[in-house]
Amino acid sequence: MASITLAEAERVLQAAKAKALQIGVRVGITVVDSRGDPVIALKTDGANHFTFDASRGKAHVSAVFGVPSGETAARADSPVFRSLVMMEGGRLIFSIGAVPLKQGSEVIGAIGVGGATGEQDEEIARAGAAVL
Amino acid sequence: MASITLAEAERVLQAAKAKALQIGVRVGITVVDSRGDPVIALKTDGANHFTFDASRGKAHVSAVFGVPSGETAARADSPVFRSLVMMEGGRLIFSIGAVPLKQGSEVIGAIGVGGATGEQDEEIARAGAAVL
Amino acid sequence: MASITLAEAERVLQAAKAKALQIGVRVGITVVDSRGDPVIALKTDGANHFTFDASRGKAHVSAVFGVPSGETAARADSPVFRSLVMMEGGRLIFSIGAVPLKQGSEVIGAIGVGGATGEQDEEIARAGAAVL
Amino acid sequence: MASITLAEAERVLQAAKAKALQIGVRVGITVVDSRGDPVIALKTDGANHFTFDASRGKAHVSAVFGVPSGETAARADSPVFRSLVMMEGGRLIFSIGAVPLKQGSEVIGAIGVGGATGEQDEEIARAGAAVL
Repeated sequence: MASITLAEAERVLQAAKAKALQIGVRVGITVVDSRGDPVIALKTDGANHFTFDASRGKAHVSAVFGVPSGETAARADSPVFRSLVMMEGGRLIFSIGAVPLKQGSEVIGAIGVGGATGEQDEEIARAGAAVL
Repeated sequence: MASITLAEAERVLQAAKAKALQIGVRVGITVVDSRGDPVIALKTDGANHFTFDASRGKAHVSAVFGVPSGETAARADSPVFRSLVMMEGGRLIFSIGAVPLKQGSEVIGAIGVGGATGEQDEEIARAGAAVL
Repeated sequence: MASITLAEAERVLQAAKAKALQIGVRVGITVVDSRGDPVIALKTDGANHFTFDASRGKAHVSAVFGVPSGETAARADSPVFRSLVMMEGGRLIFSIGAVPLKQGSEVIGAIGVGGATGEQDEEIARAGAAVL
Repeated sequence: MASITLAEAERVLQAAKAKALQIGVRVGITVVDSRGDPVIALKTDGANHFTFDASRGKAHVSAVFGVPSGETAARADSPVFRSLVMMEGGRLIFSIGAVPLKQGSEVIGAIGVGGATGEQDEEIARAGAAVL
């Protein structure tokens, strides 16, 4: 299973950070590998402490299911997803703000963002994903 | 990030307690700093044991999001907030009864109240916040 | 079962706080009732965030067992105490720093302190207990 | 309470990463603020998934107690530290590998490393801290 390298993840993260600063919002940003494990993450100055783990929870969903986390939100209340969230102690978030990172058709990771509106979070994530 | 001092928090707490006694309700009251960590807290005579931690859970929400906790209640069932509650082991409450404490436009903490009706809880919290 | 009132607990807390400031240490202080539930608690300026819950964990032990928490430390590793700590999710601490509050021979609560050395913690707790 | 900025934390992280690559070990590295909340973190290519959260757990200890986490290791088995670890669901590690970040005498954060030997972890952390 191909997975994102740290060098690639750093480029994705920096592009997302630049977009967040341009929009003027305070967020947490996490890039995860194809398994959903974090490779690199940050929280911009003044972002609240939840944003760091929230961005990770969205990215995990997006990497595992291979779609933007927002596409899973309608099923967030399903018994399966509720149980998965519980298994992870809440560290899994079926909500808008993350997109998969792909190499051709293969998912090699995901980037998740938390702290702004859901739409802004996803816009920032897409700005990061665009550099690959 | 500026945060409330103990001396300020004590004044806030005493004002809120006076309001609770005046209304005649039994409550828990917690003042937290800008990160959501508790600075001072009490439970009035006869209040049930849950009120102590419930007031803290509301105050945490209000400090982190910078708004009265009641304004977050409509989204309490959202996947993001449900995951945050689970990450905190239930010690985060998206419900009416807490208000932020501000210095100018900056949030320096919050006061949360639990044990009466939601409206009374918030009235008591606002009486505390008014002394700053 | 007689239990401490908020008015009494406030006097105990203030005396302990005064002692902590006199010694010059940063601590969390919690007064609990005879059941071990918190009545009032604070954290002095600059004390780390763990001190708030740590003082509560010691006070809980002291109220329930009716002895200074330091006297239970030798058995902290026993299977019973380890299981109790786990039941409480770590919010129970068998270590020096708390003393029971008594009315005659009856335990009406306890005061716990955390953040300084164990001996200083207990000295501060005793200063609080002395006002009753 | 002053706390590290993202810009400072990025410089610290990059210096630590360079040291890890120079030594030739695979590690997780986390920089936290003065409260112990993560600001930025990464995992080098091939490091196992635990290294990310392990580096955070050590950094949290170092920031809160203001000393290298290795200096707390002798007391890791004390009732107080065991209870704190449990309260944090294991996300607190009293073991060598993290050092505080200071501005004069004030702790503004910490850097933690996990994945190599304890001595190498601390060497990498110190290389990061040296840039401030």
